[in-house]
Amino acid sequence: MKVGFVGLGAMGLPMAKNLIKAGHSLTVWNRTSAVAQQLEPAGAQVAATPAGACQGEILITMVSDDSVLEELFFGEPQVMASLPPGAIHLSMSTISPAESTRLSKAHAKAGSIYVSAPVFGRPDAAAGAKLLIVAAGPATAIDRCRPIFSALGPKTLTVGENPSAANVFKISGNFLIASVIECLGEAFALLRKSGVDPRLFLETMTGGLFAAPVYKGYGALILEENPESVGFSVRLGLKDVKLVLSAGETASVPMPVANVVRDHLIEAMARGWQDRDWSSLTRVVAADVGL
Amino acid sequence: MKVGFVGLGAMGLPMAKNLIKAGHSLTVWNRTSAVAQQLEPAGAQVAATPAGACQGEILITMVSDDSVLEELFFGEPQVMASLPPGAIHLSMSTISPAESTRLSKAHAKAGSIYVSAPVFGRPDAAAGAKLLIVAAGPATAIDRCRPIFSALGPKTLTVGENPSAANVFKISGNFLIASVIECLGEAFALLRKSGVDPRLFLETMTGGLFAAPVYKGYGALILEENPESVGFSVRLGLKDVKLVLSAGETASVPMPVANVVRDHLIEAMARGWQDRDWSSLTRVVAADVGL
Amino acid sequence: MKVGFVGLGAMGLPMAKNLIKAGHSLTVWNRTSAVAQQLEPAGAQVAATPAGACQGEILITMVSDDSVLEELFFGEPQVMASLPPGAIHLSMSTISPAESTRLSKAHAKAGSIYVSAPVFGRPDAAAGAKLLIVAAGPATAIDRCRPIFSALGPKTLTVGENPSAANVFKISGNFLIASVIECLGEAFALLRKSGVDPRLFLETMTGGLFAAPVYKGYGALILEENPESVGFSVRLGLKDVKLVLSAGETASVPMPVANVVRDHLIEAMARGWQDRDWSSLTRVVAADVGL
Amino acid sequence: MKVGFVGLGAMGLPMAKNLIKAGHSLTVWNRTSAVAQQLEPAGAQVAATPAGACQGEILITMVSDDSVLEELFFGEPQVMASLPPGAIHLSMSTISPAESTRLSKAHAKAGSIYVSAPVFGRPDAAAGAKLLIVAAGPATAIDRCRPIFSALGPKTLTVGENPSAANVFKISGNFLIASVIECLGEAFALLRKSGVDPRLFLETMTGGLFAAPVYKGYGALILEENPESVGFSVRLGLKDVKLVLSAGETASVPMPVANVVRDHLIEAMARGWQDRDWSSLTRVVAADVGL
Repeated sequence: MKVGFVGLGAMGLPMAKNLIKAGHSLTVWNRTSAVAQQLEPAGAQVAATPAGACQGEILITMVSDDSVLEELFFGEPQVMASLPPGAIHLSMSTISPAESTRLSKAHAKAGSIYVSAPVFGRPDAAAGAKLLIVAAGPATAIDRCRPIFSALGPKTLTVGENPSAANVFKISGNFLIASVIECLGEAFALLRKSGVDPRLFLETMTGGLFAAPVYKGYGALILEENPESVGFSVRLGLKDVKLVLSAGETASVPMPVANVVRDHLIEAMARGWQDRDWSSLTRVVAADVGL
Repeated sequence: MKVGFVGLGAMGLPMAKNLIKAGHSLTVWNRTSAVAQQLEPAGAQVAATPAGACQGEILITMVSDDSVLEELFFGEPQVMASLPPGAIHLSMSTISPAESTRLSKAHAKAGSIYVSAPVFGRPDAAAGAKLLIVAAGPATAIDRCRPIFSALGPKTLTVGENPSAANVFKISGNFLIASVIECLGEAFALLRKSGVDPRLFLETMTGGLFAAPVYKGYGALILEENPESVGFSVRLGLKDVKLVLSAGETASVPMPVANVVRDHLIEAMARGWQDRDWSSLTRVVAADVGL
Repeated sequence: MKVGFVGLGAMGLPMAKNLIKAGHSLTVWNRTSAVAQQLEPAGAQVAATPAGACQGEILITMVSDDSVLEELFFGEPQVMASLPPGAIHLSMSTISPAESTRLSKAHAKAGSIYVSAPVFGRPDAAAGAKLLIVAAGPATAIDRCRPIFSALGPKTLTVGENPSAANVFKISGNFLIASVIECLGEAFALLRKSGVDPRLFLETMTGGLFAAPVYKGYGALILEENPESVGFSVRLGLKDVKLVLSAGETASVPMPVANVVRDHLIEAMARGWQDRDWSSLTRVVAADVGL
Repeated sequence: MKVGFVGLGAMGLPMAKNLIKAGHSLTVWNRTSAVAQQLEPAGAQVAATPAGACQGEILITMVSDDSVLEELFFGEPQVMASLPPGAIHLSMSTISPAESTRLSKAHAKAGSIYVSAPVFGRPDAAAGAKLLIVAAGPATAIDRCRPIFSALGPKTLTVGENPSAANVFKISGNFLIASVIECLGEAFALLRKSGVDPRLFLETMTGGLFAAPVYKGYGALILEENPESVGFSVRLGLKDVKLVLSAGETASVPMPVANVVRDHLIEAMARGWQDRDWSSLTRVVAADVGL
């Protein structure tokens, strides 16, 4: 397929590589063009402008947040205009449900089609084509995207025709992860101040009821306290938690545990930890009580 | 061993049966004596008073909360006095760390020994001798209790000499469980109001990062919304969350997620749901937003 | 002075009238032009576009939120370009500190000057020229605005050269008001469910330590429960509380009480109360516990 | 009248002096007898035991918390037995509604009468006979107490026959005070980190909508940051906030702002500030964000 790809960050770059490997013809654009040029030897075209990446059947966006899409599709009129009639904008970033809805309506008006398909998985899963994709949008459009999906991950869930549903699904997953970090942080602080080894607690819990990768992985990360190892930064964590809260507001649902996480991430920002791993929010919890 | 056993509730009764089965000689006492008499055919002695159950080497208590122990050991002077010198009070209930500390000091003064050994597991695990026991207290006293432990569960953790440590460990585990219920409740409310099927979400999450019994079990329980099935009531859940908060206060650690859970359980009480399963707190979350 | 005025809502219209009365020459623009035309008999010019209101020495904006200013100054390039060199944009709306900072920088680049001057007071105070104005920006620019300020209220505070400071000041004031509503709501719920008359409580408290208009006014409003009387809607209240949280995030300060208020306002939205007075959040608090 | 008085702390001592001055015949008891002996020259009898203070028509208790009354009336059987038939226990301490209810029932059973009458006012108001008294209990019993009330303050409110109502009233008042401290703390942190002088903010707010002693007094106290001046300690503040939460639980009412205050007071305890003024919770808020 002829595919445009905008956004070659930690996730976008390995995804684009996998699409090329799968035989798709890619035209790429990235804010920092040097990254885009890395893909030329593999056969990608590098577009000079975002509009230049809009010539194919599908335009994939994998950008950092709502505001980038706002700027691309509402700030620069030529991007939307450059999409051929009936082309699909396949939006794979973690963005707000509200932004998905806004884009979906704008595409409908412009004669193009919006499909929302955020992914679960970190950069290594992107590189290994092991992403879990959650797609929502018109069924026929999703079917047209399947060759893309199959190059990126083993499994694609579809959650209906309403694009924002996929974003709520993704955001809810991130919320659960954030809540695990917070609750382990609170429990570990209680245990440590009470003279109990949190390692033994973690080992015991993950040996039974809590035998899940998210507890094992984040539990170990928190106990290591290695500020060098950054899988997902405080800054991005805060962005994600704000997406949870904004999705909650759109649906008129308070998310009190997300409030707690947000406040601890803000405290982490106040300590200058914006570039540490977001599990550092547990160090805020600890520091606040003298640990 | 010659063992006294006080408290034959949903947990205590099957535990006492297993101790008899293992060959220990039991003298039991229960507030409602009819329950105690059930154990007579199996060979237990039934004491007329709590003090009457204090003649052996070990006195096990398995009661509903701090206040019962307060009354037994500080309200009725003859209980403490009836324990033979060097006897062990093996306290297996889920009580506050502060109560454990208070009892530990009182026993030291009285010439007896306090061992704290709360358990993880529901009544069926108690019946099947599959409890996970977390013990803390003087090492020699814990060793003396091992024949008891081995009759109740396959595994006993020891977490040091300070009895309250075992209670903090147990309470922290309960806190994690409560947090899972709360967070699933918030996520499901968001998903439902956004038109996404929470079943698909649960299935997806527990198929990966969240592949743990606690998410599978409570997730299913929440989605079923079967008010008849009560594993652990709202009232007891509230008691447990208050233990978390009180343990936090003793250790000077705020537990903000426990506050959130407490408030939802209180709302459940306001709705008259005190005897429903504590996962009903998620129905409060749902009802508050019109679901 | 020759003054442009954009935004003739419940606050803007009476403010514009007072400026005309004070002898200033006004060119006005409003999204709904019918409202602007009301001012023609009094001597105002009506501009056909926002840019048309930018010809004077000062352009006042009194709009509903950040997004309107975003659209005016960043979405429509001709607005910024139409301001004469050295002209002042006097921004009197309740907007985020971050938006003030963004506008301030953009004006500096364009050769115009940004002054932030949000106001305390409801529409009746605007009509009576009794607004309390909180101004921040370059001292010389603030001095140039004094003839404007004196036509709108008896008192203008200045809080420094940094425009966003005035917005933080205003938002913090709104936060205190919101917190009073929330806390009265919680206290009244507790009193009512305990069989104590909240009227007597309010009367007693406001007769002593709490003898302030905010407790007397909102206390009475809450106890009346007159859904028809809407001074400030739930929807606008939610906007304001989000400004508090966003200002907190910009400054890296958690605002946990604002979280509580936000969640209750969201519940009010879920009940369809978006157009009721924002003191209705106390009815959510009451309804959640069966009152 | 012949009056017993138990509890001669910072509040009780000046209250007892005023009763003697008003001509009542007092028999006093205090845990530390030296304090009781101070009242002998003024004409008070000093009892050797609490029971010894129970011989009169009225027994006043002014103690630090629930647990003291628990011990007096449920731990030492002779206290209750020593009250003459028809005597009144006038309970003026700040205690939980639940404790009032428990005492009320016990007195009814024992043939004595329980009246709850907590007070608003600090030690200086107690000394100046300027306490605001909030009384609840049987109307005839309250009438019998009026000579006592008139010696202690200019005004007594009555809030019905149910004694616990008076405690809920008092506790709700303390909750409002605590909420003011918390919210000023949050607002000041936001202002300071945004470069705005909190003094100017406080002065402005208390010059208008917030012109109440509680904002002026606590605002000044917070801005002074004088750790030597302790009107009411963190430890006692925490006790009071726990009373709010416990009253909320009894009435099935969540008090989320009280949760926030409690958590900050716990953090203050973690910093070793238990004996500082409870307004120090705002220093926790500030310290958590690097101020």
